[in-house]
Amino acid sequence: MDRIDSYVREGEESLDDLQINNYYLIQKKKGFRYGIDSVLLSYFMKIKKEGRLMDLCTGSGIVAFLAEAKYPLTYIEGMEIQEEYAEMAARSVRMNGLSDRMRILQGDIREVREHFPSGSFDYVSCNPPYMIGSHGLTNLDPAKNIARHEVMCTLSDVIEAASWLLPGKGHFYMVHRPFRLAEIFDKLKKAGLEPKRMRMVYPTLKKEPNMVLIDAVKGGRERISVEAPLIIYNEDGSYTREVLHIYGKEEID
Amino acid sequence: MDRIDSYVREGEESLDDLQINNYYLIQKKKGFRYGIDSVLLSYFMKIKKEGRLMDLCTGSGIVAFLAEAKYPLTYIEGMEIQEEYAEMAARSVRMNGLSDRMRILQGDIREVREHFPSGSFDYVSCNPPYMIGSHGLTNLDPAKNIARHEVMCTLSDVIEAASWLLPGKGHFYMVHRPFRLAEIFDKLKKAGLEPKRMRMVYPTLKKEPNMVLIDAVKGGRERISVEAPLIIYNEDGSYTREVLHIYGKEEID
Repeated sequence: MDRIDSYVREGEESLDDLQINNYYLIQKKKGFRYGIDSVLLSYFMKIKKEGRLMDLCTGSGIVAFLAEAKYPLTYIEGMEIQEEYAEMAARSVRMNGLSDRMRILQGDIREVREHFPSGSFDYVSCNPPYMIGSHGLTNLDPAKNIARHEVMCTLSDVIEAASWLLPGKGHFYMVHRPFRLAEIFDKLKKAGLEPKRMRMVYPTLKKEPNMVLIDAVKGGRERISVEAPLIIYNEDGSYTREVLHIYGKEEID
Repeated sequence: MDRIDSYVREGEESLDDLQINNYYLIQKKKGFRYGIDSVLLSYFMKIKKEGRLMDLCTGSGIVAFLAEAKYPLTYIEGMEIQEEYAEMAARSVRMNGLSDRMRILQGDIREVREHFPSGSFDYVSCNPPYMIGSHGLTNLDPAKNIARHEVMCTLSDVIEAASWLLPGKGHFYMVHRPFRLAEIFDKLKKAGLEPKRMRMVYPTLKKEPNMVLIDAVKGGRERISVEAPLIIYNEDGSYTREVLHIYGKEEID
């Protein structure tokens, strides 16, 4: 790695250790910063064969970096509509010395057909905005609004882009809110992406899930495997062993 | 209750205490007997307003009896295609002195339109056969096959019957296998029944769910509430407190 100072804008950006492969991520101190959802998404992905990954709505690039570190990917691209986030993610790529196999594209996923032929990627991932339209929009930071609300892209946009980019049998990995599950399944199916694997994420054993992880396969047959519950916190408020394992802190049995 | 002997066929049938309202259920000793799925379905139902319930594929009538005991239902009907089960369930109705508000209809749910006008019931419940077609059919008892496999009715038949029987805002409660979740949502939506509430049932905290409870509303808007996980067994193999509570054995906190 070159001198960090040349990549990070002092004062407005932070450098965060991803705890894997010695990768670091540049993030805005005050903008949208990655959360546990991105970490869980990269952990939920199951990539055993070499291939190309597209991470839609990549933001700082967090999911793309974690996937690059974990899986036998030959090429990773991250697409981000917001210029300042795309530029920042591109600096993280260079800083981590990944320019030979990772690229950040600033662009609108609704125009994905103009950038790539259909079936260009074996895997597509996305941690999209969760909230419908501008429902409950209260944040004054437009970048945060774009990351959280469907201002710039909707669930349909994400799913249609994924379907275009994948060949038959290609996998689409997404994290989203459970309250949209019926809509998600419906839109996936209509786009030819069959939900094949799902995991509910519960904050604690006694609470409703606040995230759902989905693995859909282009042209897959109709049968879904629902996995064991992923519980984040023990009753005493500490992380469960599985979450500690995901964060690389402890081995799981 | 009259003399039990006049209702139960000694040798081939058993009388089981439902542990609620002093209700007893006649079951075949060797035929299809109710399981925890029927108990969980009746517990999952949320009926606060008076109304009429139709329990499709009622078998021994288990779900209908538990619902009658728990909720402010004014009338309950159970529909069962197998003559011998319908006749047995009807005896349970008489034995429990419920003939004034409960009826068992022997008939095919595919012909529900010939029996009832659309919108005749406020609530519909069903614990249908889980297995697709005759896939993996190994049981020599035809009655058990009919209860477990889609020999006499498919998921589509159940959903279409429920949709016919319900008025707008009417609730359809179903228990099924998680591996069919995407198909279930798809068929519900196509029948105008929107999945509004769902609960995953996990045998233990570390296992994949083996049941899913679904509450769909006719003409409901697209938003689902996924509930806290329902865990059946503790790690030591004993029932969890919630399951003990469901069976009326212990108060839950």
